[in-house]
Amino acid sequence: VAAFTDTSRLSLNQYTTFNWTTKEAIEGCRKAGLHWIGLWRDKVEAQGLDETVKLLRDNDVQVSSLCRGGFFPAETQAKRDEAIEENERAIDECATLGTDTLVLVCGGIHANNDIDSARQMVFDGIATLIPYAQERGVKLGIEPLHPIYAADRNVIVTLGQSNDFALQLNKDFSSYSTPVGVVIDVFHVWWDPTVYEEIKRARGHTFGFHVCEWITPLPDTLKARGMMGNGHIEIRRLREAVEAEGYDGPIECEIFNQEIWDSPGAEVVELMKERYLEVC
Amino acid sequence: VAAFTDTSRLSLNQYTTFNWTTKEAIEGCRKAGLHWIGLWRDKVEAQGLDETVKLLRDNDVQVSSLCRGGFFPAETQAKRDEAIEENERAIDECATLGTDTLVLVCGGIHANNDIDSARQMVFDGIATLIPYAQERGVKLGIEPLHPIYAADRNVIVTLGQSNDFALQLNKDFSSYSTPVGVVIDVFHVWWDPTVYEEIKRARGHTFGFHVCEWITPLPDTLKARGMMGNGHIEIRRLREAVEAEGYDGPIECEIFNQEIWDSPGAEVVELMKERYLEVC
Repeated sequence: VAAFTDTSRLSLNQYTTFNWTTKEAIEGCRKAGLHWIGLWRDKVEAQGLDETVKLLRDNDVQVSSLCRGGFFPAETQAKRDEAIEENERAIDECATLGTDTLVLVCGGIHANNDIDSARQMVFDGIATLIPYAQERGVKLGIEPLHPIYAADRNVIVTLGQSNDFALQLNKDFSSYSTPVGVVIDVFHVWWDPTVYEEIKRARGHTFGFHVCEWITPLPDTLKARGMMGNGHIEIRRLREAVEAEGYDGPIECEIFNQEIWDSPGAEVVELMKERYLEVC
Repeated sequence: VAAFTDTSRLSLNQYTTFNWTTKEAIEGCRKAGLHWIGLWRDKVEAQGLDETVKLLRDNDVQVSSLCRGGFFPAETQAKRDEAIEENERAIDECATLGTDTLVLVCGGIHANNDIDSARQMVFDGIATLIPYAQERGVKLGIEPLHPIYAADRNVIVTLGQSNDFALQLNKDFSSYSTPVGVVIDVFHVWWDPTVYEEIKRARGHTFGFHVCEWITPLPDTLKARGMMGNGHIEIRRLREAVEAEGYDGPIECEIFNQEIWDSPGAEVVELMKERYLEVC
């Protein structure tokens, strides 16, 4: 697959420039000639939802996705209901911000180490949300996380699992048009010996593609990611595979890394653009 | 499955008491009433191979497995040949120490991020070793590592991959009786949604079962493990699954954890015995 010749599909996930406010990030996109941004709910709330909508419009920037819904497993029905309500608010925010994709980080093990029931709670939680999301024009994107986060963040750890859920739910809710899909972040899936066959299975329900790097030694378990080109992931090969199945949407760059967070945002954005053209 | 009523199958992997010499570890086993130990090549070398053999005999302790062979991928044929020679020395040591199991940590990505060719080098490396190992009564146990180690330690990250390799190699070398198998460490496989079906596929070629814990937050990427009972793994359920497929060999406790390493060895061994009876 050829290198990109422009950055028209590149989206700045705002956690990459963590110390920027939402205003700074949106304006930073415009100054850098970028038309897409991936937003996080906590940062949008800090800026104010209406103010964020105005900033997006004024700077001609669109939202590729909103992070994040999910966190379904909980010990009690009351807590699981609360999680559904929180996800409904996230869906409302997607609609207001003009993005059709809510990224789901599905949640970890709730109690007594019962990973199977946690996985069932995830499935049931997504099923519960589908009608609400569809009525508001929002799709639910299951993002498998790297198995390092299986216990405390996401019991959905492979693209295979995510595809199983999406295919089953889209069948169960076949009156809607593909309400559930997957979001593929190279950091989370690159190690998986089945990743290329699962990318094929995700044809028609891949809602997002995220880039960053796996660097060694891993600097931290959470702030673990590197800039594209600094690590071990065959990013272009993965992009080629995703595009061969028809994905032509925005490509978000999402990097959690203390050193990058401590750098000036505009420099990070310029390096991100360079590396996107060079290695993605 | 019932709790154990004795520690007759419990094996101290000597890295659990990292600050003990091999002599101290073997004597520590005897004092604790344990009959098995899992040894590491570096620690055996520090003690001396012949001296270690004598200590094992004098203390009535048997070796459940030797860690480790592997690390097959390398950029040049000369370096891959060196890796084979190093593995042959490890096989010789297994024979001398009286264990039939060499644990393989297969190695990371060698160069240019080409994970597929690294995986092929692993397959070819194991195939090359089989006759040498079989002539010395040693079996090769592929240990899938957690995907956190995919880049720098082991491109074999799932039990499914390990089974694929073992089944193919045992077919290719069918004049021998099961020369290749898997070593299942709960830390490395617990998160995998296919783990229970893959444990079934490993029937007849499961050469080892290791216990420890996945604790959160992860204290470190390498010294990452916890004492059984302190984390999120369904250890007994995994043991039940492995035993249902016929595994009745030693159960090694292998914990890399700085806090545990800083504790007195005899206390660690006593706690290990308690937790083995309580949660394994």
